[in-house]
Amino acid sequence: MTPAELHLYLDECRELVTAEIRRIIPADPRRGAALYDLMLDYPLREAKGLRPALCIAACRALGGKLEAVLRSAAVLELYHNAFLIHDDIEDESLLRRGGPTLHRAYGVPVAVNVGDAMLALSLQPLLDNIETLGLGPALRILQAVARMTRESVEGQALELDWVRRAAWDLADEDYVTMVEQKTCWYSFITPVAIGAIAARLDPGRIDALTSFARRLGVAFQIQDDILNLAGDVDEYGKEIGGDLWEGKRTLILLHALRHAAPEDRAEAIRILALSRHESAHGSASEAGTRVKTPDEVRFLRALVDRTGSIDHARAVASAWAGEAQRAFDGCAAWLLPGVHRDLLQSLIQYVLERVR
Amino acid sequence: MTPAELHLYLDECRELVTAEIRRIIPADPRRGAALYDLMLDYPLREAKGLRPALCIAACRALGGKLEAVLRSAAVLELYHNAFLIHDDIEDESLLRRGGPTLHRAYGVPVAVNVGDAMLALSLQPLLDNIETLGLGPALRILQAVARMTRESVEGQALELDWVRRAAWDLADEDYVTMVEQKTCWYSFITPVAIGAIAARLDPGRIDALTSFARRLGVAFQIQDDILNLAGDVDEYGKEIGGDLWEGKRTLILLHALRHAAPEDRAEAIRILALSRHESAHGSASEAGTRVKTPDEVRFLRALVDRTGSIDHARAVASAWAGEAQRAFDGCAAWLLPGVHRDLLQSLIQYVLERVR
Repeated sequence: MTPAELHLYLDECRELVTAEIRRIIPADPRRGAALYDLMLDYPLREAKGLRPALCIAACRALGGKLEAVLRSAAVLELYHNAFLIHDDIEDESLLRRGGPTLHRAYGVPVAVNVGDAMLALSLQPLLDNIETLGLGPALRILQAVARMTRESVEGQALELDWVRRAAWDLADEDYVTMVEQKTCWYSFITPVAIGAIAARLDPGRIDALTSFARRLGVAFQIQDDILNLAGDVDEYGKEIGGDLWEGKRTLILLHALRHAAPEDRAEAIRILALSRHESAHGSASEAGTRVKTPDEVRFLRALVDRTGSIDHARAVASAWAGEAQRAFDGCAAWLLPGVHRDLLQSLIQYVLERVR
Repeated sequence: MTPAELHLYLDECRELVTAEIRRIIPADPRRGAALYDLMLDYPLREAKGLRPALCIAACRALGGKLEAVLRSAAVLELYHNAFLIHDDIEDESLLRRGGPTLHRAYGVPVAVNVGDAMLALSLQPLLDNIETLGLGPALRILQAVARMTRESVEGQALELDWVRRAAWDLADEDYVTMVEQKTCWYSFITPVAIGAIAARLDPGRIDALTSFARRLGVAFQIQDDILNLAGDVDEYGKEIGGDLWEGKRTLILLHALRHAAPEDRAEAIRILALSRHESAHGSASEAGTRVKTPDEVRFLRALVDRTGSIDHARAVASAWAGEAQRAFDGCAAWLLPGVHRDLLQSLIQYVLERVR
């Protein structure tokens, strides 16, 4: 599949799912109209459409129908966008998909509520699956979603715990554990699992397919970290260097700290302990901490270059993509040949080469 | 039932449900331990235990067993406490159940995540109901929860919409609509409905019982507004006058504005438009607004007294309690005589007379 064909597939899936989200969100002009508009804000922004494509492609490559999976794919987008809104608050992020984050545009109270509203509306469509898919698959999808939410919240908790403990002495394996929980479960593993359930795949084979998805997700996230440091803001849609400002535990930064000279490491950790914004959240514990300066962030960026950490990240991402390919090869025999299987295969190269 | 017996019943239900919450929240010492501790923070604080008691009493007064309802009652508490945490952020509240609100103690990022974590953990126990209650009741409980979350988020949205539009020209009916959605659905209607489903009550009768619960909830919330203005902080556990500082649309304040002299009304609305805290959330739209002074809040408090608005609220609460009694009388014939039915009956007087 050519890159152009791949992007066309992703765009089509995104449009299908966005239309389905519009059907899920009630359009009551009298009440809560402002809320419902804001629930469409992130979903309508330019996005890659990876989750919808994974979900739909997995279902269809296994012989399932589009209608069997579309509603669940839309629910995953509701969950994902709800978590994005709340993550942006938690991370004090400034930009999302080329625009200001929701809490910057409308304030934290509204953004918290919009995320909650999206989570609240996600249960009913999954119950409606009972009528269209039958009880067994509908319940297995509910179980998959329950697992997904637990894993992703635990991953977020793990990361917040590192922040609170000022933990920086972390190995690549710690990073991968966090990424699997925080990113892979809701953006890769569960979309593929739900596509497979909707297509009534034998449960024994679902693990093989989700193993592919998990490895793909790790490669994707490492590439995302690389783009955050070395990407083009117009393509990437988020602020370049935002991870350094936010003090995110990325594979790159952890490698840089492990390979820095002791005095550079100490200086970097001092800088990383500083806030991003002045008393942004009014938390008592943050009162009095100074904010990072552009010079200090430039120091971190130079350290990353000196330690060759971006090259290290590229090599690790590439190795995970290789693992994803091996997992895919193990499934290829029982995936139907055609555009849907090709899409799944092509995503392996895509996650490494993408610029946004 | 004497007040002492009623409090004993509430306390017992609260303890049963708290123990069940501990069973739902995983106790993994390695990962996310800090998160799991924080999830117990609000549930372990002194609380009335109304929802657990309503849920358990409804089930048992209909001949259901405690075990049939306990897990679902615990899930309702998870939902309720998650919404409390997020509401406290949205309302910039300072105190909750006698202690600092979670976001004041740990910062907004952690508080957003703890609430999300509680919501995330709430799906699995409801799926586990399938094994213990059978498929039909388990699915009806899931449907009840889906409805509850939608109603309460819509109620919250309605209120936030009033804040954004600076809407103050509101009737008692507007207030009641908001309270039914925001408070009654998750604290009264759904607990009773789930108790009834767990006891396998004929669906036709559930509406009669939830009508009682809804009316009880409106009376409860009006009394809560009264305590917020005229209560004792040591009993009430929240800041007295907090609703005025936060500019909450209460029955009391709306009545005061409707009955104030035109110049007092204009002054009150000017004051209510001011923020509570300085740039508490870093929202662009709030930048530059001045905060309320204690003198200005005292002006609002005096206005409430001049217009007799607290007496009006007492009369309205009493009328709703009367409506609740009439609804209860319609159910009494098919509720089993005994302590559980007595508890439901006694709550009507309790919501009006409570001091906390």
